[in-house]
Amino acid sequence: MPNTLNRQIILKKRPRGLPRPDNFGYREMALPALKDGQILLRNLYLSLDPAIRGWMDEGEESYQPPIPLDHVMRAVTVAEVVESQNAAYAPGDFIMGLNGWEDYSISTGTGFVNKIPADNKLPLSIYLSVLGTTGLTAYFGLLDVGKPKSGETVLISAAAGAVGSVVGQIARINGCRTVGIAGGAEKCRQLVELFGFDEAIDYKSTADLEREINLKCPKGIDVYFDNVGGAMLEAALNCLKDGARIVMCGAISTYNATEPVPGPSNLWQLLVHNARLEGFIVSKYASRFPEGVSQLAQWLLDGSLQHREHVVPGLKNAPDAFLKLFNGENTGKLIIQMD
Amino acid sequence: MPNTLNRQIILKKRPRGLPRPDNFGYREMALPALKDGQILLRNLYLSLDPAIRGWMDEGEESYQPPIPLDHVMRAVTVAEVVESQNAAYAPGDFIMGLNGWEDYSISTGTGFVNKIPADNKLPLSIYLSVLGTTGLTAYFGLLDVGKPKSGETVLISAAAGAVGSVVGQIARINGCRTVGIAGGAEKCRQLVELFGFDEAIDYKSTADLEREINLKCPKGIDVYFDNVGGAMLEAALNCLKDGARIVMCGAISTYNATEPVPGPSNLWQLLVHNARLEGFIVSKYASRFPEGVSQLAQWLLDGSLQHREHVVPGLKNAPDAFLKLFNGENTGKLIIQMD
Repeated sequence: MPNTLNRQIILKKRPRGLPRPDNFGYREMALPALKDGQILLRNLYLSLDPAIRGWMDEGEESYQPPIPLDHVMRAVTVAEVVESQNAAYAPGDFIMGLNGWEDYSISTGTGFVNKIPADNKLPLSIYLSVLGTTGLTAYFGLLDVGKPKSGETVLISAAAGAVGSVVGQIARINGCRTVGIAGGAEKCRQLVELFGFDEAIDYKSTADLEREINLKCPKGIDVYFDNVGGAMLEAALNCLKDGARIVMCGAISTYNATEPVPGPSNLWQLLVHNARLEGFIVSKYASRFPEGVSQLAQWLLDGSLQHREHVVPGLKNAPDAFLKLFNGENTGKLIIQMD
Repeated sequence: MPNTLNRQIILKKRPRGLPRPDNFGYREMALPALKDGQILLRNLYLSLDPAIRGWMDEGEESYQPPIPLDHVMRAVTVAEVVESQNAAYAPGDFIMGLNGWEDYSISTGTGFVNKIPADNKLPLSIYLSVLGTTGLTAYFGLLDVGKPKSGETVLISAAAGAVGSVVGQIARINGCRTVGIAGGAEKCRQLVELFGFDEAIDYKSTADLEREINLKCPKGIDVYFDNVGGAMLEAALNCLKDGARIVMCGAISTYNATEPVPGPSNLWQLLVHNARLEGFIVSKYASRFPEGVSQLAQWLLDGSLQHREHVVPGLKNAPDAFLKLFNGENTGKLIIQMD
């Protein structure tokens, strides 16, 4: 599509601490011609996730390389194939994959790019939430790393968030008692009424989180699904049952730190309780994504899985929307709908 | 044995930080008459272990209750049954069990007490080292928690210590490349020459431990068997291979801390590497001790397992000897031979 302008949000300046609007830039670029094997994608939805914050830093070894300065911001998107020089893709196909904060992305069609089934009946944005890495992170993290058994107690931090809310529901479907930690009365109400958690803990109105966890998990924690790290992890470590599993999914409390944040001083609890702390990255399970998508879709269709999306329209609103992730303002999976 | 005096080392004052001689007291007590079901044990060897330091503190939940003030210090001992009101034990039997820093202990014959086979041909003290909780900790911690596979790299801290030296040898027997961290040239020489480690790292002469680990583990760490915690754990976390397992066996670097010691600031590495940190207490494996003892004894007898004991004679020397554990002065498993 020669002469087509591609609007892009770029990384202008690396953030120190919490990102600010001036970390981002905006530009319009002409699209280059497609090379052999490439496909041209029109992005329809962008997924805004806490992990993007890590890609904005330089240097640190991570599971994705840093975004270079003056390059387009990176995100998982749902996109339509509009041109193809790759036999595996045809115009009109829809895909979910790792692309950019931009109107059009060019992909080799390999790596992190998944076709959305042609007979899909669900709204496309769901491939960025429950049927995307968010839902898959919840599915494999809870079931494969946490290994909950029926009757066990599962504690979840950032439980009203995109991952946490799905974790809690999968735990409930598997017969577990579920306790969610979230910030504010409204989110806690959602946990119980919308997502079916057994108990909710409002960390913002609790002076002693450890005491509150002990009250709500009187037999102790069998599985702690941790999206937060920091003081919340430290409190949970003091409430473990023997043989407990802590799933380390994220540590949003530390993503914007400008200095190294010390870890919990009570890791010793892992020893006393024959317990484990295990990290994981969902891409480890890439070969099993079809299994996860199929099971999650079934739960969506039979009504046992609820989800919420927080859809913000307009590419240019992406930077402001992204900041909501870190002050807890988003309600449900944060998605940009392209204009 | 009425009129027999029992010499005891007692907990006189709880330590704050490193224990000092005045934390301990000495007394002589008359032995009470045995009650039905009890056995009277004459202690022959006392095992001095870092874990005893934890039992000297009050309050903290741990796998053993605190030693009450003015009560006898606790230790695993090898003892001879000298009187029995319990049909399961006869005078002349030898046992290994949890008793006290004293000439005689009275036991119910239940709980942590194991008979030493009547046909035992090995020196009795070995039931406090390789065939005691030390060796069993190495055996189950490495094989069941660490799950090393042939060809993998196993890093061990406090590698010249009683547990670490056995861990390294079991890893080698299982076809792993073994790298030990110890303090001082002499201990490092032992690691390689006596215990057959592939590489040794002298943390005392190394300014940058992380760099040294990377040099000695060029493919990264598959299993880290950690007896130390603290800065050593932080350095190892930065050198993990994908899928690494950290066995948290102890954290001697923190046992004498008077304030909570922050954990490593890079637990995030567990996430990036799909890795785990798992604590364990050997008593979890109590039902499988015979398997462990049998395998360890076989390795001792066929010469594939070397061990060193540091035997200090005399009950009254126990407090001073105990302190050696924390300044690294002991060479091999520290044992008091009763006088």
